[in-house]
Amino acid sequence: MKRHLISAADLTRDDALLVLDTAEELARLADRPIKKLPTLRGRTVVNLFFEDSTRTRISFEAAAKRLSADVINFSAKGSSVSKGESLKDTALTLEAMGADAVVIRHHSSGAPHRLATSGWIGGSVVNAGDGTHEHPTQALLDAFTMRRHLSGPGRDLAGRRVTIVGDVLHSRVARSNVHLLGTLGAQVTLVAPPTLLPVGVETWPCEVSYDLDGVLAKSDAVMMLRVQSERMNAAFFPTEREYSRRYGLDGTRMAAMPEHAIVMHPGPMNRGMEITAEVADSPRCTVVEQVANGVSIRMSVLYLLLGGSESAISAVRPEEGR
Amino acid sequence: MKRHLISAADLTRDDALLVLDTAEELARLADRPIKKLPTLRGRTVVNLFFEDSTRTRISFEAAAKRLSADVINFSAKGSSVSKGESLKDTALTLEAMGADAVVIRHHSSGAPHRLATSGWIGGSVVNAGDGTHEHPTQALLDAFTMRRHLSGPGRDLAGRRVTIVGDVLHSRVARSNVHLLGTLGAQVTLVAPPTLLPVGVETWPCEVSYDLDGVLAKSDAVMMLRVQSERMNAAFFPTEREYSRRYGLDGTRMAAMPEHAIVMHPGPMNRGMEITAEVADSPRCTVVEQVANGVSIRMSVLYLLLGGSESAISAVRPEEGR
Amino acid sequence: MKRHLISAADLTRDDALLVLDTAEELARLADRPIKKLPTLRGRTVVNLFFEDSTRTRISFEAAAKRLSADVINFSAKGSSVSKGESLKDTALTLEAMGADAVVIRHHSSGAPHRLATSGWIGGSVVNAGDGTHEHPTQALLDAFTMRRHLSGPGRDLAGRRVTIVGDVLHSRVARSNVHLLGTLGAQVTLVAPPTLLPVGVETWPCEVSYDLDGVLAKSDAVMMLRVQSERMNAAFFPTEREYSRRYGLDGTRMAAMPEHAIVMHPGPMNRGMEITAEVADSPRCTVVEQVANGVSIRMSVLYLLLGGSESAISAVRPEEGR
Repeated sequence: MKRHLISAADLTRDDALLVLDTAEELARLADRPIKKLPTLRGRTVVNLFFEDSTRTRISFEAAAKRLSADVINFSAKGSSVSKGESLKDTALTLEAMGADAVVIRHHSSGAPHRLATSGWIGGSVVNAGDGTHEHPTQALLDAFTMRRHLSGPGRDLAGRRVTIVGDVLHSRVARSNVHLLGTLGAQVTLVAPPTLLPVGVETWPCEVSYDLDGVLAKSDAVMMLRVQSERMNAAFFPTEREYSRRYGLDGTRMAAMPEHAIVMHPGPMNRGMEITAEVADSPRCTVVEQVANGVSIRMSVLYLLLGGSESAISAVRPEEGR
Repeated sequence: MKRHLISAADLTRDDALLVLDTAEELARLADRPIKKLPTLRGRTVVNLFFEDSTRTRISFEAAAKRLSADVINFSAKGSSVSKGESLKDTALTLEAMGADAVVIRHHSSGAPHRLATSGWIGGSVVNAGDGTHEHPTQALLDAFTMRRHLSGPGRDLAGRRVTIVGDVLHSRVARSNVHLLGTLGAQVTLVAPPTLLPVGVETWPCEVSYDLDGVLAKSDAVMMLRVQSERMNAAFFPTEREYSRRYGLDGTRMAAMPEHAIVMHPGPMNRGMEITAEVADSPRCTVVEQVANGVSIRMSVLYLLLGGSESAISAVRPEEGR
Repeated sequence: MKRHLISAADLTRDDALLVLDTAEELARLADRPIKKLPTLRGRTVVNLFFEDSTRTRISFEAAAKRLSADVINFSAKGSSVSKGESLKDTALTLEAMGADAVVIRHHSSGAPHRLATSGWIGGSVVNAGDGTHEHPTQALLDAFTMRRHLSGPGRDLAGRRVTIVGDVLHSRVARSNVHLLGTLGAQVTLVAPPTLLPVGVETWPCEVSYDLDGVLAKSDAVMMLRVQSERMNAAFFPTEREYSRRYGLDGTRMAAMPEHAIVMHPGPMNRGMEITAEVADSPRCTVVEQVANGVSIRMSVLYLLLGGSESAISAVRPEEGR
């Protein structure tokens, strides 16, 4: 049976815990001098990136190589894709070349789902971020990070309170986190300017607030989203300074958080914008841990999809449609 | 003795059959869970690409990695080549770095031949497409695909009738196919607008026709060339629609082909231009098979050039000149 | 203890000889059919390139792969670095991904030193060229080349006379060579137009001359620097021809060198500018050997930094500052 990871919403609680627990085991490798496992030797992982994202690409590349897979990087820029080749023809090409997994980053929401459900690809599809839709391995690595600080191996996040702050409207990170955190039992609060919340957010399994200071004291984790200044136009906000004043995390605000609470960021950070340098560099900020955890999570996902047990991540089946 | 693959015209019938038969053996690997062979472990294959061609590059990369070679991608863009380094200095650099094979794609016809005959390179040179000249591994994978459908392993293509349709003038694919198909005993007919046929085509070992409908019923394989719209200017053709009407392959035309006949395309296809979506997606169209066969053929070529028997592919020797 | 290679000036005579002697041993590998050693299996080397330099990048890539390390290429162009990510955040990302060595090329002098002394990186840092500052592996491969021609394995370059000609002001190659050659006992003479010598050159451990013809007869090696024409503006020189006439190496000048003396160049050469084609292609010119030696030297450096003995290359320690 083919298996894919398209959306955090597709993961059951058991699926998610299996990914997290497997990642825990794999993370122990990082402490050994030889970090490599032979598990995926002879398998080919293709990084199919329609958007530049060096950080995500090298995280998947490092994960695949530590499992001894061969990695082929396919950047859509300068390829026949940019000469108008369809996603279908690209997919058929990769399939014909024997790709066991295709890690896809695409500017269009839904492209990974289409790839997975089309029947074009026999291997596994992993969504590495699609438009403003989802970024499930980011949500998994975030949950992994929270669990290490707030719960413990093997446990979920029941009752933990997570606050996500910033441009939720355009954030696939926020969307994937809301889904996965709900599945794992956490209580999520979104804090954002009204213009940066998506239509229909009231149907999401979370609360919404416009008052950052009001929720900090009740947060076990505060996740700051990256401000993408190209989306921060005057229509939304008078100035970056004003955004920073109302929705940025500085030392004073961090001091209002409970002592055990952590500050998270998917990176790269805009120091001085959504987060001050003081907070970014404090030991409570897990941004670097998140990167390390990302490799473990991606190893876990590739391992379970390509080499792992039958009981692993549930499938998006072609016949299910959407 | 040094060995290279520069031109399909250099291959004897025995050479060509050896490459095809070896590719048959290697293709069986693709059905195993572990597709990798240790044959070229410790060898270095450099992909030296002066033109973007992601599909060809990753096909060679996948082939080399399945044979356990190390692959180094050298894109001439942004390198000292773009600062005016000569082909000679680039070649000497790769040689000094210990490249066992250099797979070269170049916009100038003849560059791979120069590389192979210069004495600059001790390893093997494989032409991955040079200007409008040749693309021998494409012709080999096409022959491999035809043989699977029309003849059988170990056999050549004697008596098979192959029709090649489109912009022959600019097509290295057509040129290499005409050479190789002739060597393998097939009868080739070129169908193209008169302005898109090269001067001297009457000396080629093939027939020429301007009437696609007249030859379809007598074709065992119809190979549609990609239309490169930047070359389709008004001087040649009033409109794309007119081209499509006279030289495109649609369902009606496909129905005129013998029942066993196949439709081929080097990809990427312009659906709606030289080929309709109906034909492209029909089971008679081998475009996806061709891609898969490309990996097997390139494995076979690298295997024979770098690791294989002394009786393998014949050489272009430096002293031969041209 | 962490170890880095930031500057040729940091190397003691024993350090330098250890790198050279280890490179001699590793160079012998290049004569075997299987060039690969398992030494760095499971280690990850990241090529972090903020400037394009295909030659240097693939030299390090080939070196790392021959030692069986995994290589991840991180080009700063198109990455979040170009969206304003700081060197610190990039460094923390690579560290979190488990990079055992970071090979850095940067347009700013001092960036590798900052990376090595910041505490951001737990692995080794290797300077692959920073601004106009240093390029220590180039100096090592140059010394390796000179030793092979002028001294012998295990020996230093005591008493050898090396002339370095050209744009010393902007040349990290010259700077690193002056340091290392001094350490190894050679006598260095810089020949350059006065405007292309750095302020303070009189404190360097070398002599300065404006008269190329005056020093050739006393040189065991003449190293021609690459002219970077974007820096050769009218303020410095009336014409390229004038530069070439006064500071270029042609056959006549080469004939004035002692019979055993060699001509060196870091490549890529501007034939007709700082060196004529006749000299470039003469057997006395070691430019191609230098490239081959570069792979051996980089293998040696990676081996000693990542896998080698405790007595290896001395450290730039975080507490030392500068």
